[in-house]
Formats: sequence, structure tokens, C-alpha cells
Amino acid sequence: MKAHKESRLLREPTVAAAGVRLLSDALRAQGIAVIDASWEPPPEGAAPSLSRVAADLRRLEANERAVQAMIESKPEVVGVTTAGDALGLEPRQFLHSGPPLTWEEASGPLRGALVGALLLEGEAESPADAWEICERDRIELFPCHSRGAVGPMAGVISASMPVYEIRDEVNNHVTYSNLNEGLGKVLRMGSYSNEVIKRLRWMKTNLAPILDDAFKRHGPFDVRALLAQSLQMGDEGHNRNRAGSALFLREMAAHIAQCDYTNSEIAQVFQFIDGNEHFVLNMVMPTAKAAADASRDIPGSTMVVAMARNGTEFGIQVSGAGDQWFTGPANTPSGVLFPGFSDVDINPDIGDSTIMETYGIGGFAMACAPAIVRFVGGSADLAHQKTRQMYEITLAENPYLQIPSMDFRGTPTGIDVAKVVSTRILPAINTGMAGKEAGTGQVGAGLVQPPMSCFEQALVAVAKSGFEK
Amino acid sequence: MKAHKESRLLREPTVAAAGVRLLSDALRAQGIAVIDASWEPPPEGAAPSLSRVAADLRRLEANERAVQAMIESKPEVVGVTTAGDALGLEPRQFLHSGPPLTWEEASGPLRGALVGALLLEGEAESPADAWEICERDRIELFPCHSRGAVGPMAGVISASMPVYEIRDEVNNHVTYSNLNEGLGKVLRMGSYSNEVIKRLRWMKTNLAPILDDAFKRHGPFDVRALLAQSLQMGDEGHNRNRAGSALFLREMAAHIAQCDYTNSEIAQVFQFIDGNEHFVLNMVMPTAKAAADASRDIPGSTMVVAMARNGTEFGIQVSGAGDQWFTGPANTPSGVLFPGFSDVDINPDIGDSTIMETYGIGGFAMACAPAIVRFVGGSADLAHQKTRQMYEITLAENPYLQIPSMDFRGTPTGIDVAKVVSTRILPAINTGMAGKEAGTGQVGAGLVQPPMSCFEQALVAVAKSGFEK
Repeated sequence: MKAHKESRLLREPTVAAAGVRLLSDALRAQGIAVIDASWEPPPEGAAPSLSRVAADLRRLEANERAVQAMIESKPEVVGVTTAGDALGLEPRQFLHSGPPLTWEEASGPLRGALVGALLLEGEAESPADAWEICERDRIELFPCHSRGAVGPMAGVISASMPVYEIRDEVNNHVTYSNLNEGLGKVLRMGSYSNEVIKRLRWMKTNLAPILDDAFKRHGPFDVRALLAQSLQMGDEGHNRNRAGSALFLREMAAHIAQCDYTNSEIAQVFQFIDGNEHFVLNMVMPTAKAAADASRDIPGSTMVVAMARNGTEFGIQVSGAGDQWFTGPANTPSGVLFPGFSDVDINPDIGDSTIMETYGIGGFAMACAPAIVRFVGGSADLAHQKTRQMYEITLAENPYLQIPSMDFRGTPTGIDVAKVVSTRILPAINTGMAGKEAGTGQVGAGLVQPPMSCFEQALVAVAKSGFEK
Repeated sequence: MKAHKESRLLREPTVAAAGVRLLSDALRAQGIAVIDASWEPPPEGAAPSLSRVAADLRRLEANERAVQAMIESKPEVVGVTTAGDALGLEPRQFLHSGPPLTWEEASGPLRGALVGALLLEGEAESPADAWEICERDRIELFPCHSRGAVGPMAGVISASMPVYEIRDEVNNHVTYSNLNEGLGKVLRMGSYSNEVIKRLRWMKTNLAPILDDAFKRHGPFDVRALLAQSLQMGDEGHNRNRAGSALFLREMAAHIAQCDYTNSEIAQVFQFIDGNEHFVLNMVMPTAKAAADASRDIPGSTMVVAMARNGTEFGIQVSGAGDQWFTGPANTPSGVLFPGFSDVDINPDIGDSTIMETYGIGGFAMACAPAIVRFVGGSADLAHQKTRQMYEITLAENPYLQIPSMDFRGTPTGIDVAKVVSTRILPAINTGMAGKEAGTGQVGAGLVQPPMSCFEQALVAVAKSGFEK
């Protein structure tokens, strides 16, 4: 110990500098080691807002209320219904992921998914026919979030599609998502080939009624408990749902087996779930949305309650600013591509699945899933670094969702736009990557960042709102 | 960099000493920092053997062959048969865990399990009747290992019990284990109440034929691949098999659902598997045994091919010493007790499940399962320490079984008795704990160490064998 102490005194000093480079450059010129911290002053527009909200003690209380509401939400799957019944959709009305946009603004995978949905609804005879209907402005588009729903990737939900009904008894609130189709050539990635439509039809006629029946036998299915388990089993809940999907099947198998269908029809359901490591994604997403919705509309709160992308823009919503979207151009993810694809094939960021990061898991809980780095690219250490960084932009640690390798520390929960703007640390997001061209399907998986401007705009809006009721 | 280098030169030296304390004490007397390594000279009996095997270069080659055979073994479940058919057991012949012993030497849980097995076989009318049959020496006992089988805890296998058939095509070798009953009041923990016997009967009439049928539909089930996955999902393969059991059910569900039984009978099977986080233990154990058997009978090899306990003694077998058991008194595990039990209720170490540590997982792969420390007691860091230590007494790293949190390093595989004796590091073992009194059942789970004397005896035996063919 003594030797160690002495040697520290004898070491040359290292200077850590933040802000303008004038000081640190001067030191470097004198041969002194300097580490520059990544801090930058907030941009001109956001700076006054940042000082204003930072100085307002009411924000602390508002954010505490917001994050506690998110943490204490306890969503459960109660059954499977249809989007027409539950969300009031007509045959030519479609939900999509992310903030609002028009057909003209839509990227390839969203256009492909809309073409497929028109075919599924029997509103078009062929892909060309469907395309023309869209071009002639004969469809209506709404964000999933505007109807209490979320959808991965293109997020297209049409009237006859089955949807999970998720109920949060704590807040007497209901959310929805469609059913996951599996990997590769699937509607949510923009594919609309015959196999895609055929699979979606089977999901309506067989999978949905069997699951609904099984949920009714089982009783409400506690999704937060499932997530808590799966985070201890190598999942991060967004891009890796292998444990969650297996645990779901384990718990539901006896109830599925008792449905009044033939052995072979039941076996098909098991085979379908076995073949899809992301099966529970469409249950955990509306769970995260239900939790985030519990934090909405708290005056003065700078906490993020939605992050979502439509393939063109990235948008966020903030508790203290109602349903307003704050958007910026969607970045293009980078990661590991499937064989046969290159960087030019990747569509800009798309999907409501960033609701998982909004809830404090996914990219925020990468430390749970060292194996994910082999899927999205990067090292096991990167996974821990990302998670550690996310504690700097969040308000709390979720005691129900823990990270075993960090000694069961709670996941970093409740993104504060004020913290994002002041630290310049952006939320870490794991994501699937869709092909740019309509009809391509999935091309890989990777990491992506939201544009900083969304957070700056949101901060300005909350500051302006001045905590009025 | 420069500053760092200089400071190293300026630090006072620290001395690391091994062996007799005379030197290190003399240094300490002069105020010099000394770290004593835990090395001790091997005991009188083993010292000449250690020098002899250490000096013999043929040992390196023999151990390399032994550990490679273990690593390359690829066992698969091919079906479920009965112990009578597969192992030639008669109604009053019973297999048990660990090295050979008599009824008189048997501990409470083994006696309880034998009483239950006599009831199951219809050889006794009542527990008292069964007990008398045993006392009058009217039963025959054989170690599971002597018949190519392994059994957890008491490890009692009787003629009519169903057993998994595990085939290793690489070595054209077959091993067996009975089916796992679940937790709590179960035969393997020494319980023999009506519910225990009733459950065992249902396992014979329903579970076994349904599983056998499903395995035949599925084709050979690759258990090593299952283990590789589950180690990336928080299991260590001995005391935590939650991921493995869920993955097994996921993969087999469609095949189980197609069996020619009623929906309700099929549902019972799913419910049973869902209720048992250790369901696959009795598949992974004979898998580890098949792999360890592949390493047997290599002249001069000091590699362990079996570690097993019968509740009275701990025994090991070593590749270079045939089927000879090297035994010492079984230690009593310590860990986390179920409510209502105390330390005096814990039986000494029992079961063949240490075949998992023999195969390099279980206690050796605790770093995969930070959550296990909540079950067996200790901290998440302890799990990593244990695994790191195990590399010091093993011969290789298994490339098929990786530890994500250690950057996908292979599990420490192939225990070398020479390394154990020279480092004095004993294999780390996770284990269930049975109640001492016959009939009690499980009382908790914890950690335990084997007696060093087993390893010393084994080393002496291999040294004496002198590499003769």
C-alpha cells in the first residue's frame, strides 16, 4: 500500500478539460497530457430553455411522478382481438410506425407494407393495383401511437389484423400491437409476396383464435414479470427476445394444447412460435407503451414518453408537451448485414420498437445481453459501456427489471430531454434493418442514434409551456 | 505512457513467495512487502507421484487425447426406454448415485429413495415393509456409473423406471438417466410419500411414452447444442437449467402436440415441464457422462472422468486408472436453506450430478449464471472468481460451450488431478441439498467441495500404473 501511494505522488499529472479547446490546446502545446471531455455547450436555441428548466425545482417533482408512473405500471396481455374492433379501423385506413407522414413521404419498406396490407384486406387485386390506390391518395394513414398502439418496423396495422390487447390495471389503460410474423420476408420489413400474405391469413384464422383462447384459459399474462426473467437470461427485450419467447411458450403450452383444434393445427402454432425468436416482441412493445403512457401529460416533465421512427423521420413525445411530435431526419443504422446485402441497401431507421428504449431496456439494457453484440456488431464491453452511459440521461433505476452482470442494478429508466441536451449523450438503440426497396424484407440488425434536434425542440417546448395545467 | 513507465521503476518491490515460510518471514522482518502464494507441498504420499507424473512427457499427450475426446463427443437423446430393458435391472436390483456402498452405509435420502423404489416396483406393501426388506439384505445395489447411467441426488433407478437413451455417434456409445420429477418432495431427495409414488407412476404411463414418441418424430436431440445456448442464457447447467428447460420445451412442443393422446393428457405433460426448471437436468447429465466416458482408459492420463457422491462418500474416477474409485468422506454443502430447515438438517453431499463439473460446467461455469448466486448463496463476483480459478486445474477450454461475460471464452474443461494436487485448488461444485432424515426431501441448494484425498489417491494410482497398456 505504501509503495502504491508514493508512486501516485510521483506520477505526472493528467488534465481533464471540458468546454472550449483554448485551454486544453495551450496545455498540450506545453507537453502536458490532456483528456478532452465530450461536453459541448447546448446550441443557441436550447440554451435558455435548458437554464430555465434546470433552474425550475418543479421539474424534479414532475419527472419523479412521471418515472414512478412508468415503473409501477403493470401491463398484462388479456387476449387477442382485431384491429377493426379494437381500434375502429376501416378497410382503407392503416396505422404505421413513427410520427405522422404521407404516402409521398414514406420510405420503401413502409410503402411495401401498405401494398401488402391492401392485398390482405382484399382491397387490391395485385401489388400494382395496390400501388395505384396509394398513389391516388385513396388510403388514410395514422400513426400507431395516435390509437394507443405500437408496431415494429413499418408498423402497418390494418382492419382485419389480429392485435394483442394489453391492459394495465394500475392505470386502467389499454394498448395494442399486431402479431409478430417471424424473420426475413415479412410485411413489417416491407415484403408483400404471396407467402407473406398467406402467412398473415393463417395468423388471422388459426394463430389468433388459438392464442386468444389460451390467454382466456391462462388468465392475464404478466409481461413485466416475463421481461424481468428474460433480462436475466441474455435478452435485452428489443433485438434479442429468445429467452422471453421460450419462457412464454413454456408457460402457455398447456393452455394452447387444450384449445379445440386438431393436434396438427396446435402443432403448427408451436412450430411457428419455435421458429421465431422475436415472437414476444409484439407483446413487450405494447407493454412498454402502456408503461410510457402512464407517464404522459405531467405538466413540466421533461421525460420522454415515446420514441418512434417512420422510416423517414425520427420523432419523440415528451410528458410535459402532450401529443406533440418533435422530429428530425431518421439516421441509417449500421451493424451486421445478412449475406447478399450492402450498406446501400439499408433503409433509414424505422419502427415503433424504440418504445423498448423509452422504457429503459433494449439498447439501454445491452449489458444483459452480451450475445447481442454478435448480432448488431461490437464487443461485449461495448454492451456494458452503452448501459453505463444511459444512467447519465435517465431519471431512475427500475427495481423490477434488473441487470445481473451489474450486480442486479435496475435498468436506466425515464429519458430526460434536459439530461440528453446537457450531456449531449443520445439514447442507445438496437434495431432491425429493413431493405430500402419496397418488397426487400430484412437486411440485417444494428445500432442507431436519434437526431439530437428532437430532444432540443422538446426541451424548448416544455420550457415554453411554463408548467401551465 | 512515459509517466506511467517511470512510476513503475520508482515503486518499491513486492516479493511473492511460495513454499516454506522461512524466507518470506525473514523478508517481512526487514519491512519488505511479501505476498504468500497459497501453494503447499503435496502431502508425503502424493509428492513422489506428483514429481513422477509431472516429469513424464507422455502424460501431456495422454491428457490431450483425453480432453479432446471429451470436447468432441456429441451426445443426442434418441428416445425413452425402461431401466429393465436398457440396463438389465431385476425388480429388487437398484442403481444409486456415487461410488459403491451397502444399505448399512447409506445415508437418509438414499435409504428413503430405496424404500420408495420398492413401493413403486410393487415389491413392498408399505414403507415399513420396504425398510425391512432392505434391513434383511434382500436388495442388490449398484452404482449408476457401473451401468453407463447417472442419477441426480440419491440417483435411485429401478427396473420399471423410464430412462433417457443418449447416443454419442462420435464414439458409438450410449448412456442413460431417469426422468426428472420436479422439486420438493421427490424420490431423488429421499421422499417416498403417496404423491411421490403417484407422480412416478404417471411418468411411466404418460410422460415417458409421449416423450419417446416426440423424440422419434423430432429425430436425435442435440444436447450439447442446447447446453451451448443455455450457457448464453444464464444457466450453468447443473443447478440452474431454466433456459435449457424452456428451450427444450420450445423445440419439442410441436412434436409432443402431435402424439396420439388427448388434448388434456398432452396439456398435463406441458404443465409438468413448465413446473420444473430442472427438467433437462436428467438429459444434460447423461450427456456429460457420455462425453466423460469418451475420455476413459487412456494410459497415463490424470484427467478426471467421473466425480460422484453417494451421500456418505465422495468418489472420483480417473482416465488412467480404469474403473477404480478414489473416495473420501462426503462434505456437507452450505448455501441457502428452504424456510423451516437449518444446517443440522443437511445431508452430506449426494448425487451423480457432479458429472456436470466433470464436463466443465455447473460450478465451473458459474460466470454464466450470476443469478445462481442468489440460489446457492454468494455474490455475482464470486461466480466469476470460481470460474477463473477452475482454469488453473483444467486442461482445455471447450470451444462449443462459451461464457459470454468472459468474452466467449470456452468453459474450463478436463480436471487434471495433478493440477488439483499441486495447486491445492479443489473443483467448485454447485449442488442441491437433501434432508438428512429419510423422507424429508430437498432442504436447499448450495456449494460444496470434494475431499482432497480423492485426488491424491488417484494421482498415486496413475503414477504407479506406469503407463502400462
